[in-house]
Amino acid sequence: MAKRYLSLISFTDALERMKKSAQPPNRTETVLLDVAAGRVTAEPVYAKFSVPGTNVAAMDGLAVHSLGTSAASDQSPIVLHNAVRVNTGQSVQPPHDAVIMIEDVWDEEGRWVIRKPASPRQYIRPAGEDIKKGDLILPRRHRIRAIDIGALASYGIPFVNVFAVRVGIISTGSELVPLGMMPLPEQSVESNNFFAEAYLSGMGATCTRYPIVPDDPDKIEEQLRQAVRENDLVLLSAGSSAGTTDFTEEILKKTGKLLFHGVGIKPGKPVMMGIVEKVPILGMPGYPVAAQTIVREFAARLLEYWGMAPHPTYSLRAKLAQRLTSELGFDEFVPITAGRVDGKYVVFPLSRGFGVQSALVRSNGYLHIPSSVEGIEIQQEVDVTLFDNPARIDKSPFIVGSQSILLHILADHMIEQGIVLRCCPTGNLGGILALRSGTCHAAAIHLPLLEDHTLPDPFKILKNRPVLRIVIAEQSLGLASRKEIQFSDIREIPILNTERGTANRTLLDTLLAIKNIPVSLVKGYAEEVKNPEVLASRVANFNADAAMCTQASARSAGLSFLPVGTDSYELVIREETREDPGVDALIRSIQSSSFKERLSELKDYRTEKTGIISR
Amino acid sequence: MAKRYLSLISFTDALERMKKSAQPPNRTETVLLDVAAGRVTAEPVYAKFSVPGTNVAAMDGLAVHSLGTSAASDQSPIVLHNAVRVNTGQSVQPPHDAVIMIEDVWDEEGRWVIRKPASPRQYIRPAGEDIKKGDLILPRRHRIRAIDIGALASYGIPFVNVFAVRVGIISTGSELVPLGMMPLPEQSVESNNFFAEAYLSGMGATCTRYPIVPDDPDKIEEQLRQAVRENDLVLLSAGSSAGTTDFTEEILKKTGKLLFHGVGIKPGKPVMMGIVEKVPILGMPGYPVAAQTIVREFAARLLEYWGMAPHPTYSLRAKLAQRLTSELGFDEFVPITAGRVDGKYVVFPLSRGFGVQSALVRSNGYLHIPSSVEGIEIQQEVDVTLFDNPARIDKSPFIVGSQSILLHILADHMIEQGIVLRCCPTGNLGGILALRSGTCHAAAIHLPLLEDHTLPDPFKILKNRPVLRIVIAEQSLGLASRKEIQFSDIREIPILNTERGTANRTLLDTLLAIKNIPVSLVKGYAEEVKNPEVLASRVANFNADAAMCTQASARSAGLSFLPVGTDSYELVIREETREDPGVDALIRSIQSSSFKERLSELKDYRTEKTGIISR
Repeated sequence: MAKRYLSLISFTDALERMKKSAQPPNRTETVLLDVAAGRVTAEPVYAKFSVPGTNVAAMDGLAVHSLGTSAASDQSPIVLHNAVRVNTGQSVQPPHDAVIMIEDVWDEEGRWVIRKPASPRQYIRPAGEDIKKGDLILPRRHRIRAIDIGALASYGIPFVNVFAVRVGIISTGSELVPLGMMPLPEQSVESNNFFAEAYLSGMGATCTRYPIVPDDPDKIEEQLRQAVRENDLVLLSAGSSAGTTDFTEEILKKTGKLLFHGVGIKPGKPVMMGIVEKVPILGMPGYPVAAQTIVREFAARLLEYWGMAPHPTYSLRAKLAQRLTSELGFDEFVPITAGRVDGKYVVFPLSRGFGVQSALVRSNGYLHIPSSVEGIEIQQEVDVTLFDNPARIDKSPFIVGSQSILLHILADHMIEQGIVLRCCPTGNLGGILALRSGTCHAAAIHLPLLEDHTLPDPFKILKNRPVLRIVIAEQSLGLASRKEIQFSDIREIPILNTERGTANRTLLDTLLAIKNIPVSLVKGYAEEVKNPEVLASRVANFNADAAMCTQASARSAGLSFLPVGTDSYELVIREETREDPGVDALIRSIQSSSFKERLSELKDYRTEKTGIISR
Repeated sequence: MAKRYLSLISFTDALERMKKSAQPPNRTETVLLDVAAGRVTAEPVYAKFSVPGTNVAAMDGLAVHSLGTSAASDQSPIVLHNAVRVNTGQSVQPPHDAVIMIEDVWDEEGRWVIRKPASPRQYIRPAGEDIKKGDLILPRRHRIRAIDIGALASYGIPFVNVFAVRVGIISTGSELVPLGMMPLPEQSVESNNFFAEAYLSGMGATCTRYPIVPDDPDKIEEQLRQAVRENDLVLLSAGSSAGTTDFTEEILKKTGKLLFHGVGIKPGKPVMMGIVEKVPILGMPGYPVAAQTIVREFAARLLEYWGMAPHPTYSLRAKLAQRLTSELGFDEFVPITAGRVDGKYVVFPLSRGFGVQSALVRSNGYLHIPSSVEGIEIQQEVDVTLFDNPARIDKSPFIVGSQSILLHILADHMIEQGIVLRCCPTGNLGGILALRSGTCHAAAIHLPLLEDHTLPDPFKILKNRPVLRIVIAEQSLGLASRKEIQFSDIREIPILNTERGTANRTLLDTLLAIKNIPVSLVKGYAEEVKNPEVLASRVANFNADAAMCTQASARSAGLSFLPVGTDSYELVIREETREDPGVDALIRSIQSSSFKERLSELKDYRTEKTGIISR
């Protein structure tokens, strides 16, 4: 079976080809001012009339003829006779040519008295001071902001001609179901059309989500032809980009012209582009992580090139907290989570797994590794793109380490006080390493406890740096199995093992040592599962007979549970940062009675030690 | 007449009082996923099911039982018998426990052959790898981004519960007309409601614009009571904040409680706040510049405090290009235009006139001068807030100096090549000073020319720094008057004079010198009008009998015109920056035939010299 991608072109080359072949549609539409914010002007906008329309008072006071006031002074106040009371904005007409502020006028027995003269035109806004009829308000290609909306209203513009782009979004794949339907185990909910619509309509495009098309080349072609008739750009999200049902390339070749298929970009390598009836077609992989990168790096760039408004992004220079590998020849986009610790910005790369969409949700930006770079070392300064103002993370406590629902509850508890936690999932070891290098405020760790037994000290890599540990909550760990088992069965049953450094693994190893069972005799021991969260469900799904997991996981998977020890979920903090406002807020939250109350609503967790600090 | 503001409270104090008294409405609403972008979650969102729902293939290939492949090697390939062709995403079930990439499979006479073994679980995405049923997707108070929309769809969430705030916007003022009506000279189009709606709905609020209420306390009260019933926050834009028709304070006292009236903030000093039936009421001055500041600094802050999403803004450290005065005790917000010259960011303050809404439109950010600061010196570093990514101004040529429609046409011409001009109106002198201090790429100046006469050299302050001048276009300057006049009439008629340094003024002075007329004999000479754009309309409006202006202005104002000289509109560039890409683009644009063609469509301008460079 042949290699699918005969030749990859470079990312830069692909962008060039796209811009050269995809001519701007020059579509415009006229929108009411109410809905014009965020749109981009397709032509200059000129004032319908002058503002102010005539000479008007700039202050509340009296309109006077300045000549008649010249004699006024403290010594010889004068009484005004032909003055007229005016409010700000009211017309001042000849012979009146000045306004005296009401504060400078004395009311003496119903007569108006002044003590200093008015100069001609004082406190008068001349006609056209703000804008003159026919003056330019907004140039072409200007993204309309709220302040522009106010001005356009003031200057008499009820509707605006703006650029418009119609984007058709087709999702193909027999395994897809529409949102709202419960997918069968092998099915997925179509989500690329939702993402693409949200992202591109945020730039001012009008998006049409077409119904899901099954993997049938005729039906895909039919839908494509309709979308081409109705749009300026068509996105085709393929159900499978290199499988037996990958028809996009042949359909593009049949109905139009293929520009490229396969680009040195990760994720999103199988991206392809063609032109059908002058309409550019972007074929993207079905995986959400890849599809979203293609929408952002191709479709959005094309729309911006066509005059639409880009999404706001922020550039940030920060220290990379974990080493990153990357492949030469590939422009790679890595989701990151950025935080600020000890006044310095740090970024942690998140999972690059093409199936891990949840990493995107946890990210607050991304790192673009150019194709000429082969990996980035830890602690190196990198430029990342943030989705939000860095100022918003400045005051966020930054927690790195093992994940737990307990951390979500803590975050939810703290947000009530206006404090946004930022968390990065790395596992125990990642958290402790981050603590050592000072790239987090606190490490979140699952600490294994086994009564009467000393367990390996996970903190020894901190090399005597003084740390504080604060307990969040505890839960029981043990062996989950489909049939009830005893410790003595452990040689007989295939188990799922977890990575070194996890609480599960530590307890299992200790248990085996206590029982004097050589690990070589334990089936499945040699293979490590990265994600401890899936252990129970794998046992339930017959992928193994037993695994170490929490009592809660075992219960929710309907498995039998043999208790082994305790998992104490704790935050570890460097003692020197104890007084840091973010750290202090963390500790006070954990120790608050309201937090403990919320934890006690969870079954499976013990809260007797919650909030206890130890060294 | 009494002073209106007995006591101003500080801005900080006002914000504190606002937050303390205006309790969060805790209103939420459920929205469809299609329209959830930009909204803020009112509760945590959990996954409806696990993704993937079962173990699935991570690659296109063959699903195999790994045990049966262990013997495969290059030397002894094996034929697969119980393998199943799977595409990415398809279910892999026992006994199959691994996937072999299609690239590693040989099709030999219809039989599948492999040359290396498969390890258990290879290329299999375990059930729940991305997310497990019940896992947290989004925490509370999370602003929903496009990437979140994609994930929410994937995880089966068709609608989301988000925070909602209802804002009612009432504009009062008998001088106001609704947008779409042509205002009489003394009237204004109501625009504060449009601005407030655009700004606050951009944060996720639902805004109601109520019909304009005339200056009648009973009607205002009635409208206020209705708005209070229907909203969580009411904005009351007063037609006149310190005039005879300023009823807001008494209405607030009557219907509820006044929190404050008068704050040390500029613009917007007369701002007031009250609580009616637990609903906060924000009373703002009617002037758009002031009203917009109050919406941004009070209403938007309150909404953010209530959990709504703030508008994206950018912080920038830049050099202040002009001295700024400010009053102690006032937090002042000054519109600015920021640019980047020679790699350094510079900001110019724009007009702070409360009637000059057009300055806001020209601004790309603002400078907040705290109440403790009394003025900022030129060249000082300041922190400004930009509305847009600073990267977007990095490549913009920055032109400072005199305004002209010619500059708008140049900007419109350059935008076709993707180059955005940034311009700051300062007049001739401001432009030349900016050129001297290196805070602009080019100074735009109106250069007066009078045949056979040497005029004062505006460039002498550049002190022999070599500059290049490039002509954009020329037009005729002369005396505009209602009745036809001769030079000899100049002693007899009141004229409007312009500021020193303008082309009009220079020509008038030269004319008087040639004619040997002492300026003391010219009526009106002593008073200088700042804005030369309004000269003709003032003459037309009987504010004077004559003024120096362009032939075009005289014609459009229906005035008689007596030619005096020429106004050459030119860009002045430091010779050392000639090769700067931005400067180069400027010059090439001006010299292009397409630009000259566009200019020739304007009557009144001469283009023979357009593009000519001199030293």
